[in-house]
Amino acid sequence: MSGFHEIQYGRLQGKQVGVGVLGYGFMGKVHANGYVKIPYSFDRPAAWPKLVAMCGRNREKTADTASRFGFKGYYTTWQDMVQDPDIDVFDNCTPDNLHAEPSIAALGEGKHVICEKPLAMTVEEAKQMRDAAAGAKGKHMLCHNYRFFPAVRFARQLIEEGRIGRIYQFHARYLQEVGHDPGTSIEGTWYAAGTKSGVLLGIGCHIIDMARFLAGEITTVSGIVKTYNPRRALSGGGEETVRADEDNIALVEFESGAAGTLESSGVSTGRKNRHTWEINGSKGSIAFDLEDPNHLHVCLAEGDPRLKGFTKISVTGGGFPLSTPYLPPGHNAGWEYGHVHALHHFLDCLVNEKPVEPYGATFEDGYRVQLIMDAVQKSSKTGERIVLDYH
Amino acid sequence: MSGFHEIQYGRLQGKQVGVGVLGYGFMGKVHANGYVKIPYSFDRPAAWPKLVAMCGRNREKTADTASRFGFKGYYTTWQDMVQDPDIDVFDNCTPDNLHAEPSIAALGEGKHVICEKPLAMTVEEAKQMRDAAAGAKGKHMLCHNYRFFPAVRFARQLIEEGRIGRIYQFHARYLQEVGHDPGTSIEGTWYAAGTKSGVLLGIGCHIIDMARFLAGEITTVSGIVKTYNPRRALSGGGEETVRADEDNIALVEFESGAAGTLESSGVSTGRKNRHTWEINGSKGSIAFDLEDPNHLHVCLAEGDPRLKGFTKISVTGGGFPLSTPYLPPGHNAGWEYGHVHALHHFLDCLVNEKPVEPYGATFEDGYRVQLIMDAVQKSSKTGERIVLDYH
Amino acid sequence: MSGFHEIQYGRLQGKQVGVGVLGYGFMGKVHANGYVKIPYSFDRPAAWPKLVAMCGRNREKTADTASRFGFKGYYTTWQDMVQDPDIDVFDNCTPDNLHAEPSIAALGEGKHVICEKPLAMTVEEAKQMRDAAAGAKGKHMLCHNYRFFPAVRFARQLIEEGRIGRIYQFHARYLQEVGHDPGTSIEGTWYAAGTKSGVLLGIGCHIIDMARFLAGEITTVSGIVKTYNPRRALSGGGEETVRADEDNIALVEFESGAAGTLESSGVSTGRKNRHTWEINGSKGSIAFDLEDPNHLHVCLAEGDPRLKGFTKISVTGGGFPLSTPYLPPGHNAGWEYGHVHALHHFLDCLVNEKPVEPYGATFEDGYRVQLIMDAVQKSSKTGERIVLDYH
Amino acid sequence: MSGFHEIQYGRLQGKQVGVGVLGYGFMGKVHANGYVKIPYSFDRPAAWPKLVAMCGRNREKTADTASRFGFKGYYTTWQDMVQDPDIDVFDNCTPDNLHAEPSIAALGEGKHVICEKPLAMTVEEAKQMRDAAAGAKGKHMLCHNYRFFPAVRFARQLIEEGRIGRIYQFHARYLQEVGHDPGTSIEGTWYAAGTKSGVLLGIGCHIIDMARFLAGEITTVSGIVKTYNPRRALSGGGEETVRADEDNIALVEFESGAAGTLESSGVSTGRKNRHTWEINGSKGSIAFDLEDPNHLHVCLAEGDPRLKGFTKISVTGGGFPLSTPYLPPGHNAGWEYGHVHALHHFLDCLVNEKPVEPYGATFEDGYRVQLIMDAVQKSSKTGERIVLDYH
Repeated sequence: MSGFHEIQYGRLQGKQVGVGVLGYGFMGKVHANGYVKIPYSFDRPAAWPKLVAMCGRNREKTADTASRFGFKGYYTTWQDMVQDPDIDVFDNCTPDNLHAEPSIAALGEGKHVICEKPLAMTVEEAKQMRDAAAGAKGKHMLCHNYRFFPAVRFARQLIEEGRIGRIYQFHARYLQEVGHDPGTSIEGTWYAAGTKSGVLLGIGCHIIDMARFLAGEITTVSGIVKTYNPRRALSGGGEETVRADEDNIALVEFESGAAGTLESSGVSTGRKNRHTWEINGSKGSIAFDLEDPNHLHVCLAEGDPRLKGFTKISVTGGGFPLSTPYLPPGHNAGWEYGHVHALHHFLDCLVNEKPVEPYGATFEDGYRVQLIMDAVQKSSKTGERIVLDYH
Repeated sequence: MSGFHEIQYGRLQGKQVGVGVLGYGFMGKVHANGYVKIPYSFDRPAAWPKLVAMCGRNREKTADTASRFGFKGYYTTWQDMVQDPDIDVFDNCTPDNLHAEPSIAALGEGKHVICEKPLAMTVEEAKQMRDAAAGAKGKHMLCHNYRFFPAVRFARQLIEEGRIGRIYQFHARYLQEVGHDPGTSIEGTWYAAGTKSGVLLGIGCHIIDMARFLAGEITTVSGIVKTYNPRRALSGGGEETVRADEDNIALVEFESGAAGTLESSGVSTGRKNRHTWEINGSKGSIAFDLEDPNHLHVCLAEGDPRLKGFTKISVTGGGFPLSTPYLPPGHNAGWEYGHVHALHHFLDCLVNEKPVEPYGATFEDGYRVQLIMDAVQKSSKTGERIVLDYH
Repeated sequence: MSGFHEIQYGRLQGKQVGVGVLGYGFMGKVHANGYVKIPYSFDRPAAWPKLVAMCGRNREKTADTASRFGFKGYYTTWQDMVQDPDIDVFDNCTPDNLHAEPSIAALGEGKHVICEKPLAMTVEEAKQMRDAAAGAKGKHMLCHNYRFFPAVRFARQLIEEGRIGRIYQFHARYLQEVGHDPGTSIEGTWYAAGTKSGVLLGIGCHIIDMARFLAGEITTVSGIVKTYNPRRALSGGGEETVRADEDNIALVEFESGAAGTLESSGVSTGRKNRHTWEINGSKGSIAFDLEDPNHLHVCLAEGDPRLKGFTKISVTGGGFPLSTPYLPPGHNAGWEYGHVHALHHFLDCLVNEKPVEPYGATFEDGYRVQLIMDAVQKSSKTGERIVLDYH
Repeated sequence: MSGFHEIQYGRLQGKQVGVGVLGYGFMGKVHANGYVKIPYSFDRPAAWPKLVAMCGRNREKTADTASRFGFKGYYTTWQDMVQDPDIDVFDNCTPDNLHAEPSIAALGEGKHVICEKPLAMTVEEAKQMRDAAAGAKGKHMLCHNYRFFPAVRFARQLIEEGRIGRIYQFHARYLQEVGHDPGTSIEGTWYAAGTKSGVLLGIGCHIIDMARFLAGEITTVSGIVKTYNPRRALSGGGEETVRADEDNIALVEFESGAAGTLESSGVSTGRKNRHTWEINGSKGSIAFDLEDPNHLHVCLAEGDPRLKGFTKISVTGGGFPLSTPYLPPGHNAGWEYGHVHALHHFLDCLVNEKPVEPYGATFEDGYRVQLIMDAVQKSSKTGERIVLDYH
């Protein structure tokens, strides 16, 4: 019994799911890390991901990144990867303008598809994806990682338990500062460079999704969309017109009768990644700040009135949804765990035949978020409050 | 030289100004306290208020309150008080529906007039007051006390110095919780009882004034106004329709091109008096919370980039505008000092022939705020963005 | 019934108490303000203070300050003032080295005596005062204003109710920054200038008193006392040895078996007036910060374990001890209210024959605090833990 | 060029280092995770760890955990593992009472040794380890992970730059709540169960190490050590004497002349893992709270005095030491990254012949911390201030 014992591959893993990740950039890395962590972040993971391949156009960079995370191999065209029979899950981590075509193709090949947010660049594209997903054999999920933060899930749990009563207000702001300085070049701002998809598509989709996840469907929208710095320098010299929005604010109403505001900005000096929201209900209020994501602030109008106030709850340790078993109370989980839990949820849905919704976002959710983003832009131009029509 | 030395009345006081306060309720008390504190809250007060009279319909209560604060006497009708030659300043602390008539009458008698906010119940009434003030001999001020908090004034100072650059966004929320419980009676909510003027007129006017004071004139408004609990019990039995709004949100644009949201609510569980605002500019951001009013949070994009972040500044002690000389650094000033400084400012304007604006709000400011509140309500009904027309 | 009605002096006031204040400096002003506010800060004040006289050596300044606060007259020697038959309460607001003699004399004249903290400069002096007070006809109170903050009193209420269980730990730090810069002159630091009584006597007495008020009697002390900058410039040129301490830390045990630390410092950069404490008990914890004095942070191990955490409670509005009736919830009371409530408590004890303790500190409390401060200094020199002997 | 490209093992990795981890519990998992993350958490990792083996007595559990993290195999006795020629780094993640023997044996075999804190159970044992390490061929590091938090390292950087001037005070508290309830069983508290090493050894060592890392060597100690609940139930019935301490406080002096307090507690209700410290210096102050570990609060007495205060700095994104390249600003790193960076530092020292100190703790540091912990306990018994003698 003494001496070195080699471990057989496959020991313990139970069901294995082959994964192919399209894109080796920031999001590709975050998803790869998410898969790597699944086997040891859960007492009994729903499935063990097999990292089959990454895919990217740049051969060297793709191979390097795939190597760092322990993928078996790589592809240089997604058209090849979607046909790999070892791949069960096609995970699309490309820039926004590449979400539609590869995802639809993968669905057509019978793959389960995860796609990064936002679903698409336009409502039309989003509709095609939604329709493709609706008719597909595989499951589909839009990767809205913030739904998978313990604080967010605990908030939803409290709402479902009726602890905050009827929701009156939902407010969210997602603020970044990257473009606050007019002297920053186009290339220095993610929102005006690359796919130029802007702040609303880039991060606004997160808070619209959060609003729907916590406060229900949105029915009307009035919007203001701003590009405060319409011309910016190019890093190589010269300047260019900025077509992307830099800040947008929506005044919304919900199916429940609640009202609120949703803002996303790329020019808010000092706010690095400030995704905050507050819900006010007839029996309680809840507030969250992504810059301190392991705490939730909850005020319930229960019990001794002298003790009423916002309680700062550390949503760490057991007893909270989505806790990480090996981290004791007060040992903070990082931002990356949103993706760990999101990806694990998708694997769980696949192998255990569970529906992706309501905890995961589907392509249908993504389509609706796209309609809302479109309404914000239209309302900004016309000045009219837009009544949403989801069909 | 030994023994008791009696002090002659009038020693030191320099210029004296006779004051008459209409109303003995919460606001009457707050103003009376404000006058009492002037002689010792400033090293050299601009003037010493002489507390000539209070005025109220209830003889006993008026006399009692007048007595507690050291007034020389009292009146039971304002029509009498406006004619008292010893009164230089007529201070109107009545409920909202009594702002217009006595203030206009006092202006007609040549008094200097301070009026509590909001200026009036309707745009029409506000216009009459504005016009009366414009033609009057006396000075006029609308008592927007929050302009006179050191944190607010220091924010304005930083803005005037150009430290935060071009303003991109201004957001403010004024949240109270008084009506969050649908079971609370009409009489239990200040906004649906009494003058039934609602949350927008009651506290929304404060943040609209704050927005204009810090971020400049408002040019467009889209609004949502909600009465979540349209029926409430009467404390004596039975129930009644609630006509006042309980929550309102405005999406606004400013003359400068900035955008923002302004909300006031009476139903936000856990928020006792949460008046918060945040300004984001191209060079800096500033944030304030009335529940911790002696601090201002400032982030400037200057100096060592590693040290950039929001600095929690205690605006106490010397070196800040409106500091209270006898309170050392870190010894917090209470909410009441907003009124002390506002009233002292008005006395200073009278005796030293200074203009009330830009630090004090005038009836013209009040009229414009009233137009904006009216636009919020109209936009809520029509769904249209309203372009404001101040004339 | 119409027209001006003059108010008769004495209307409403019920019992009146004549007050003489010795000292016109910071503390004299704070006490004078405290008396001025009593008639209108309580629904039914226990008594109305009559501001008979201030007393100070500088005739002009004494007369000016007395005039600003509405005193009837002034004295230039306390020996005269203690004999004034109109004075019931002798309020000693002098520098630390003048606490003993006038207070003992006033007690000898049968006056009720309030004295500012610390009781005295030395244990010997404190013992004389304690003994004089024990045998006197009048009542005596040491003005420990922080006992009279709503947050502090609410904490004591929770402790008395058993809500936090057995106290394990009590920690307090009172930090100021005035002397942090070695380049600051002697005169620029209150603790090394004037009576040179140092940080321990100047503000350390506050947290020792707070420890005894909330956690019970102190039984042992180990101390470190530091003068980091033993030489400082004189503002007029030259330099001088600093004999006062700049920082001191005590490791203490309590009668209950609890342990803790007490620190006061005058050299903590960035801390303007940071008086914080935290109590940890078997069932709950409570934390306070004087820089945000209208909130108390309470964590009780009761109810739904998911909701456990520190609740930020706004101790404003009714329902809390020592609330100010005319200030609604969320309208913060300033630092000055500690003195308003302390002085009102003393008047209440006089006219209603109530004991000053346990809510007010007596000269006996002051004597014990002095013994503890002395033990901190002795232990710092010898390195030994000192067992206190109160007799 | 199309199609699947298999990745050759060893691509990119550069230097590889074989790792054997002793212990599969919480710490074994945390270290395993740390190694897994190295290849992709750094742009150019100093070395790539090869996960050779885990070691534990329980065959099944060891094999399972090894499998989850991707180790090649496992051992069931450390005596076997220390002889494995593929293992370069012997990583001791056992309970405190098993630190000495395996670590000394591994050093004897020429391995590089990392050991979890505290170094040992007693000063004697620690001295043996220190001496063994001093004479060994391999390098040695005590895994004080908190030294490797960006906020902590940034604080050290500011200190080294002289930005906070001369340090006057250093205070740290490490509070947990696990045993606050007297009804909690022995087994329910990590500190009284298992090796019964108590709170001082368990977490107190962290803040003593932090004090030395940031404020320099400790020269004197006065201590209080408490076991508030000397008898606790056994989970299987009956009760037992608690020999471990539950709370301990040290009053310390530093070589530099600074003073401070260090406390660790297992009974502080509501404090899940509250490791806080504050440094006050002549030019600045710095504060940290492990419950919000991605922020550092810094106040420097520089520049515009109106802007002085504590700045809340998000130490995320580039520009800060130990940042995680693939996480953008405001995307929080979790607690686990302390270990990622600590382990990477050790690998870096091995392959690049760098000294482990000053950023890593050595066995010499561990020995000194052990002497200080011993002094806290001795001083608690004798009441005397102990002057430390490191030799």
